[in-house]
Amino acid sequence: MPFRATVLTLYPEMFPGHLGFSLSGKAMERGQWSLEAMQIRDFAEDKHRTVDDTPAGGGAGMVLRADILGKAIDSLVDDSRPRLLMSPRGKPLSQKRVRELGDGEGVVIVCGRFEGVDQRVIDARQLEEVSIGDYILSGGEPAALTLLDSVVRILPGVMGNALSGTHESFEHGLLEHPHYTRPQVFEDREIPAILTSGNHAAIEKWRLEQSLRLTRERRPDLLNES
Amino acid sequence: MPFRATVLTLYPEMFPGHLGFSLSGKAMERGQWSLEAMQIRDFAEDKHRTVDDTPAGGGAGMVLRADILGKAIDSLVDDSRPRLLMSPRGKPLSQKRVRELGDGEGVVIVCGRFEGVDQRVIDARQLEEVSIGDYILSGGEPAALTLLDSVVRILPGVMGNALSGTHESFEHGLLEHPHYTRPQVFEDREIPAILTSGNHAAIEKWRLEQSLRLTRERRPDLLNES
Repeated sequence: MPFRATVLTLYPEMFPGHLGFSLSGKAMERGQWSLEAMQIRDFAEDKHRTVDDTPAGGGAGMVLRADILGKAIDSLVDDSRPRLLMSPRGKPLSQKRVRELGDGEGVVIVCGRFEGVDQRVIDARQLEEVSIGDYILSGGEPAALTLLDSVVRILPGVMGNALSGTHESFEHGLLEHPHYTRPQVFEDREIPAILTSGNHAAIEKWRLEQSLRLTRERRPDLLNES
Repeated sequence: MPFRATVLTLYPEMFPGHLGFSLSGKAMERGQWSLEAMQIRDFAEDKHRTVDDTPAGGGAGMVLRADILGKAIDSLVDDSRPRLLMSPRGKPLSQKRVRELGDGEGVVIVCGRFEGVDQRVIDARQLEEVSIGDYILSGGEPAALTLLDSVVRILPGVMGNALSGTHESFEHGLLEHPHYTRPQVFEDREIPAILTSGNHAAIEKWRLEQSLRLTRERRPDLLNES
């Protein structure tokens, strides 16, 4: 079964967005994954299709109602896919979690808007809160699209041979070394001589050293993790 | 002058993507910000419009050429906007950097694809490498769209009064407290009594305690930073 993504959102028109092009778009056309955007408002019960209400305890903004979102989630019956809630309070997304998701049958993603989502539906439906980074977005939609991009690119057959065997950032816990290509000289800057030496062992050593140097300079936190 | 974003990409059709809807889409229609997507291929010099070449030193993937990308960047003359390169090697995007960018006149964003971008153009054009998180994307485009979403939402007038005065995640260095709204009971789960007590001082205290608890449990790294 191809990977199946279902997104619960107030803005289904934002999907597939950029995922409709390039690698992920072609993979979707080939049936290697599918994407369904469900409108949470379709589960509202009044004629105004209200999905939110004022926060208990007061304050600005509106809160997405537990009962409406609960019904939307429950419409996916017999569904064992992981249920994520994109949220700045969530666990930071890692390449490890991306790989786990890509190994599964698919994912259900809830996109919050407004001030937040009623905590009781997060608890009752065991939503896994996931954050794509320490910045605030207009809603969960840009985060969902970003997460799906990272998952889709590693699905079987999606990249073809394009990057097979490639060393990638985070795959080995280090930042990537610098890259160079022709022309040999760009504005008086030359490609480092070692890269054109033909000495493959020396090139590999140089690349690893550069990865370590960059990681130490920019992201020492990554070195502490491994 | 409204905030002006220019994106250099091999996939201009991915823009404005989700930014064409909701808050950011309406703000664009009102002229509160603008977005231009430039095709890097337009600066290639051969009839195949080639922009990449094999990596010096060997290896999989292709590298975006310094001379072609340099020409694309140089076509923006007398341009003092920050020049970002979306890259997993970059400095992690923070809400602080989002605010700085939003206070400026705009941004130029280079989206990499393939294996990477020739290091010499990063150095020569002083591109600021920015990462939106520790996971790998198909290219810089999803990252650019995410960054722009976070910046556009804080531009003057974009959110109106929707969230003015709201406590937000990261704005005070803590994760947000849980939210609740009607109905009073959801599947035997009640709204915490304190939130319906009418005691505003007690409510504020509870919320701060919850924020601290969540941050301690989920993101102790944020507490160490402040």
